[in-house]
Amino acid sequence: MKVAIYGYGNLGKGVECAVAQNTDMTLFGVFSRRDPSSVKTQFPETKVYAAQELQNFAEDIDVVIICGGSATDLPEMTPALASLFNVVDSFDTHADIPLHRSRVDEAAKLGGKTAVISVGWDPGMFSLNRLYANAVLPDGNDYTFWGKGVSQGHSDAIRRLDGVADARQYTCPVESALEAVRSGSNPSLTTREKHTRLCYVVAKEGADRARIEREIQTMPKYFADYDTTVCFISQEEMDRDHKEIPHGGFVIRTGQTGVNGEHKHVIEYSLKLDSNPEFTASVLVAYARAAYRLNRRGVCGCKTVFDIAPIDLCAADPEELYAHML
Amino acid sequence: MKVAIYGYGNLGKGVECAVAQNTDMTLFGVFSRRDPSSVKTQFPETKVYAAQELQNFAEDIDVVIICGGSATDLPEMTPALASLFNVVDSFDTHADIPLHRSRVDEAAKLGGKTAVISVGWDPGMFSLNRLYANAVLPDGNDYTFWGKGVSQGHSDAIRRLDGVADARQYTCPVESALEAVRSGSNPSLTTREKHTRLCYVVAKEGADRARIEREIQTMPKYFADYDTTVCFISQEEMDRDHKEIPHGGFVIRTGQTGVNGEHKHVIEYSLKLDSNPEFTASVLVAYARAAYRLNRRGVCGCKTVFDIAPIDLCAADPEELYAHML
Repeated sequence: MKVAIYGYGNLGKGVECAVAQNTDMTLFGVFSRRDPSSVKTQFPETKVYAAQELQNFAEDIDVVIICGGSATDLPEMTPALASLFNVVDSFDTHADIPLHRSRVDEAAKLGGKTAVISVGWDPGMFSLNRLYANAVLPDGNDYTFWGKGVSQGHSDAIRRLDGVADARQYTCPVESALEAVRSGSNPSLTTREKHTRLCYVVAKEGADRARIEREIQTMPKYFADYDTTVCFISQEEMDRDHKEIPHGGFVIRTGQTGVNGEHKHVIEYSLKLDSNPEFTASVLVAYARAAYRLNRRGVCGCKTVFDIAPIDLCAADPEELYAHML
Repeated sequence: MKVAIYGYGNLGKGVECAVAQNTDMTLFGVFSRRDPSSVKTQFPETKVYAAQELQNFAEDIDVVIICGGSATDLPEMTPALASLFNVVDSFDTHADIPLHRSRVDEAAKLGGKTAVISVGWDPGMFSLNRLYANAVLPDGNDYTFWGKGVSQGHSDAIRRLDGVADARQYTCPVESALEAVRSGSNPSLTTREKHTRLCYVVAKEGADRARIEREIQTMPKYFADYDTTVCFISQEEMDRDHKEIPHGGFVIRTGQTGVNGEHKHVIEYSLKLDSNPEFTASVLVAYARAAYRLNRRGVCGCKTVFDIAPIDLCAADPEELYAHML
């Protein structure tokens, strides 16, 4: 199967690497809104096209992996492309998923194509684990913790402050809250009790560091509800120690079974990721395979990770999987 | 939907409790090979029938959950019932799954019914996690650890020894091996390095305890390849401290992504279960729902957890799930 990448930031670069790890697919090329000659790919042999050329290759591409942002790119791009191509995206604005799904579904059905939206790890693998755990333990409680990892949105919010040259924000789960959840005590946890926020900031020369710290710690929605630590570092330290984009987290469901709920159970799923975009890309590529297979079976419209049988994600022969992985 | 339980040991009792937790299903009754009047159910209102009566109720039962043993019961029962009923079983002899699957598939297709085999946590939830993690990280290593939990087979093996009145064996994962795996160092682990075995034994009066301990520790296949600890206790201690059937374990995949595999990732799924049979039963009940739905959509034959879309496990409205769980 031939895969195209539409949009070439960190996520697109991750997809380029992930496709190379899967022997049943080849990369048709990267489609970028930038001048193709200015785009430097991960592998020298990767072809780069202008974004507007994509529609000329409807016969040549089996699945387009759309690597845009959820705020403004994907709400436009995915419905626009879903009538022409099988597509996969990582739309992650949880509240807007129903609207996005319905718009993409309409487009995909119009073109007889298959779309998979909101693929990645949250939404994505975390959602799957919430669903499976709820199906198996209907009487229980759900907990999701994120981190330790870089939040791009929170880092950007700090960078916009006056006097800030650079910033990197880590979301950290509170270990004692995790332990309380794992114990099965079903704690009610406030926002502040679940996560802390750790901010590394490069201040511009002469900037008022006390004011910057105060403005971060009192910023509504982003930081005010959390215990937030601000550390000022040099640009050299930032470049040396904070260039990676790690992330991860925990999905835990605790529940009870028995005549009177006398037996407790803990289901825990966790991710520890050196590279958030590369892992997200790896999930996208697995679901690209599923989108292609569903379309070949005549299953059209917009799907999510909930709708796809796990076997459709795997390159291996199903008989092999039944024999050796079950 | 109406569910029947075929076979009424610990697993069947667990299914009886699990059905009561799911508001979209009712329990038709328990079918036992014992005299129905001698069967004491978990809930007084549960009806008990003789096993041979089951076929008289083909019109009244939507799914039969077969709660027999994998060694001798399920290889006979599941193919025999799959042409008459939608069925779910927990067949767990990994090496024989392909044969079982093909026999059940033939029967189910003959009757236009839907069967789901090898449902539980291993095979079952652990298999799913192995599959998802392999699909997402094709370049990596798999590790499965079991415990701490009771192994019925190993407990039985000890009970068969001369001079043993009662026994309970716990399989324990080696914490340092788990840590080595989580570190991403991809260790090669021997059987002995992954698990230890802890045996509580009630010796008969006058029995030679040193001989019993030696016979356990040198028993081929069961114990010889492990560091095995034998503790002699009284029957009172056994009854007081070891009446529960806990289990659990860990499925871990470590893998790498990037241009040269420079980024490491750890995916970990774990279960900590107070009651192995009740949790297995809870998984069976979720897949009973899926079997019923697939059959109503005209999807017949033998399925496994790999073949079933997660959404079919949930009682909730799909639109609700897309909106709130994705």
